[in-house]
Amino acid sequence: MVNGYDGARAAGLPPATRELIQRREAALGSAYRLFYADPVEFARGAGVYLYDASGQPYLDAYNNVPSVGHSHPHVTEAVGRQLATLNTHTRYLTDGLVSYAERLLATHQLGGPAQAMFTCTGSEANDLALRIARHYTGGTGVIVTANAYHGVTAAVAELSPSLGTGVPLGPHVRVVPAPAPGVNFAASVAWAAADLRRHGVRLAAFLADSLFSSDGVRPDPAGFLAPVTDIVHQAGGLYIADEVQSGFWRSGTHAWGYQRHGIAPDLVTMGKPMGNGLPIAGLVGRRELLDGFGRTARYFNTFGGNPVCVAAAAAVLDVIEGEDLAANAADTGAYLKDAVTRLAADSPVLGEVRGAGLYVGADVTDPATGAPSGDLAAAVVNGMRDRRVLISATGPAGNVLKIRPPLPFAHEHVDQLAAVLGEVLAGLAGQTLPPGPAA
Amino acid sequence: MVNGYDGARAAGLPPATRELIQRREAALGSAYRLFYADPVEFARGAGVYLYDASGQPYLDAYNNVPSVGHSHPHVTEAVGRQLATLNTHTRYLTDGLVSYAERLLATHQLGGPAQAMFTCTGSEANDLALRIARHYTGGTGVIVTANAYHGVTAAVAELSPSLGTGVPLGPHVRVVPAPAPGVNFAASVAWAAADLRRHGVRLAAFLADSLFSSDGVRPDPAGFLAPVTDIVHQAGGLYIADEVQSGFWRSGTHAWGYQRHGIAPDLVTMGKPMGNGLPIAGLVGRRELLDGFGRTARYFNTFGGNPVCVAAAAAVLDVIEGEDLAANAADTGAYLKDAVTRLAADSPVLGEVRGAGLYVGADVTDPATGAPSGDLAAAVVNGMRDRRVLISATGPAGNVLKIRPPLPFAHEHVDQLAAVLGEVLAGLAGQTLPPGPAA
Repeated sequence: MVNGYDGARAAGLPPATRELIQRREAALGSAYRLFYADPVEFARGAGVYLYDASGQPYLDAYNNVPSVGHSHPHVTEAVGRQLATLNTHTRYLTDGLVSYAERLLATHQLGGPAQAMFTCTGSEANDLALRIARHYTGGTGVIVTANAYHGVTAAVAELSPSLGTGVPLGPHVRVVPAPAPGVNFAASVAWAAADLRRHGVRLAAFLADSLFSSDGVRPDPAGFLAPVTDIVHQAGGLYIADEVQSGFWRSGTHAWGYQRHGIAPDLVTMGKPMGNGLPIAGLVGRRELLDGFGRTARYFNTFGGNPVCVAAAAAVLDVIEGEDLAANAADTGAYLKDAVTRLAADSPVLGEVRGAGLYVGADVTDPATGAPSGDLAAAVVNGMRDRRVLISATGPAGNVLKIRPPLPFAHEHVDQLAAVLGEVLAGLAGQTLPPGPAA
Repeated sequence: MVNGYDGARAAGLPPATRELIQRREAALGSAYRLFYADPVEFARGAGVYLYDASGQPYLDAYNNVPSVGHSHPHVTEAVGRQLATLNTHTRYLTDGLVSYAERLLATHQLGGPAQAMFTCTGSEANDLALRIARHYTGGTGVIVTANAYHGVTAAVAELSPSLGTGVPLGPHVRVVPAPAPGVNFAASVAWAAADLRRHGVRLAAFLADSLFSSDGVRPDPAGFLAPVTDIVHQAGGLYIADEVQSGFWRSGTHAWGYQRHGIAPDLVTMGKPMGNGLPIAGLVGRRELLDGFGRTARYFNTFGGNPVCVAAAAAVLDVIEGEDLAANAADTGAYLKDAVTRLAADSPVLGEVRGAGLYVGADVTDPATGAPSGDLAAAVVNGMRDRRVLISATGPAGNVLKIRPPLPFAHEHVDQLAAVLGEVLAGLAGQTLPPGPAA
């Protein structure tokens, strides 16, 4: 795992941390990996800061789930009020669910009447989108990118190559190279569709994160997805835009990543920032797709669309509108990208910087060889953590710095991040590399 | 769907209700079915009552999710406090997650060291259990009961026969008759395991709800599952106890339904009542199963085990202990089963009554033919709704009254329910049957 804690280094940790990690390993097991060589325990969060037990602030430039800021009072108040009043499932009538669905649908353009369905996680949303696509097309084939991540249910894990070789891809899954200079992305998709057909597998869907986050953040040039939709439709499949990471105004200029490309997907999934940390996720899609599926297959998600999670989601929209966070994501995002680009110009290890709004990726390369260096990226991430700024890394080689803060991130926070990143880069230039963490 | 609203009858509804239903159908589509011939809109809930907009109370004898009672102040307070303090994912250290996992594990006996993993929904928990079973056994085959329901992800929907023929079962899935008098359940499981083997499919798991809820509530005689575990293990599979409906002291005498049978499952999944409506679910299992899976496959669920949902789950355990709800489930459950059994003795339509704790099922049959009658059960359910008592129906024919109230249900609530049920049954006996709702 990128940026994972290595238990072999436990000896260097404070006794209380070591003991909690031991209890954690006993009770939760090996799937529960921690971030950082020196794991962090947080006591509280507010705005774009997390605080440890001793009150030290950490600048959060990583977490997109608390999208409107940690512990935002408007969300806390809305959840508390709803929880004290009513929380039940969607087989009774409630106005809140319908109003929120209408509000959400108004942010999308799918080229015709659309409907919404609610789940609790992005994994469930992608799993449901896949079920709908298979139901509609009669196919099973899926095309994804080389280091895609779409979730952890059985059906979406087997089309998430970033989970590694421990999770084999399904025989109905084809991967295409991530979009990059010199890659003819649309041609790769056409090739994969033809290959599925040649194997007797009918295409159900092309599924992609609209910012290609786990592929190392690949937003540009906006518009390159337009020819892909045509190819997918001609091959009989649906275009599913995975907006779990790229949605809810993260890109600043648009509510949804697919809108940057000027396309109208058949289905759009969403999740992480939707309820500022309350488990709510879902999808929207063309009416005939959802209605046809619902009529035949039914679908009921006990907690999906419950009044408390919907209250959180509605409060998130209130805050995004009320605090004009889209404009902030565009403005601060540009300032952030500029700041990192300036550091890259002066650093032998920092290469290309890519980003849209408050989602920035920066390549870390070994200055000796020019090759992607996950070890050096981990050194940067851990160096920043030691200076109390939280980022992580992504991409197939784990060498892309992942900077993805809550949306209220301001210029002063960029300045703090840039100062610390500059310090860490300068430190790296002047010393022998630390040993890399275990894979 | 059992107890589903039939849109053809909209003309009889108040205009405001009709308008909300129309907006709902436009925004959410056909998967979002409503309960009852005359759908209910609730404004608030408290204890075992839900209230409509005009303040009329409805006795809730259906909802097991608000397990410690609607809007319980201890849960509301715990969630509000945690949400105002910190809500983040499990890759930072937090004591709350570890302490809750330890507390949960202490309620289970799996015959050796065990670990816990957290998801957001019961569907995700069953999906994960299946992934773990497949990883450990190398098999894919699954045995379930004839009208089982295990969730809505692609992988568990295809082993949930109760979803109907619109969702085909997987080729690796075998169904066995539900436990009933005259059914040799263990022999059926052995037969299914042999059939899978003969088809070249290796068994991964036997998966069953420990109260067989959607099969019509089949708790007795406690102990009949014991030989099944041996058969499943001999066939190379794992025993997965689905406690999403039957767990958290619902049966009164035990924390978990499997414990009534004196067995030690390999994996146990749980969900619905875990956070009193906050989306939290999960599983526990033998350490080597979870640890092996986590090492190879990894697993990270963004919202799974977050501090807010864990605070809700811990508060639920506090209330169950503090208000002695297990003893209440046993005591009131017995009183409830007696009351319904007495009504059955006097009613030509009410047959066998089955139950454990606060989960009671009662067969409704056509007095003319003695056959199971889903139409008559729907008439009972809707008749009770019109008198403001909420129950539903279940079972393959939809003819089993499903009485499954929040755990603080008291004798006076049973008296209210029994009076209304008696009234509805008496009314049915003296009139022509209403037309049945659409399937």
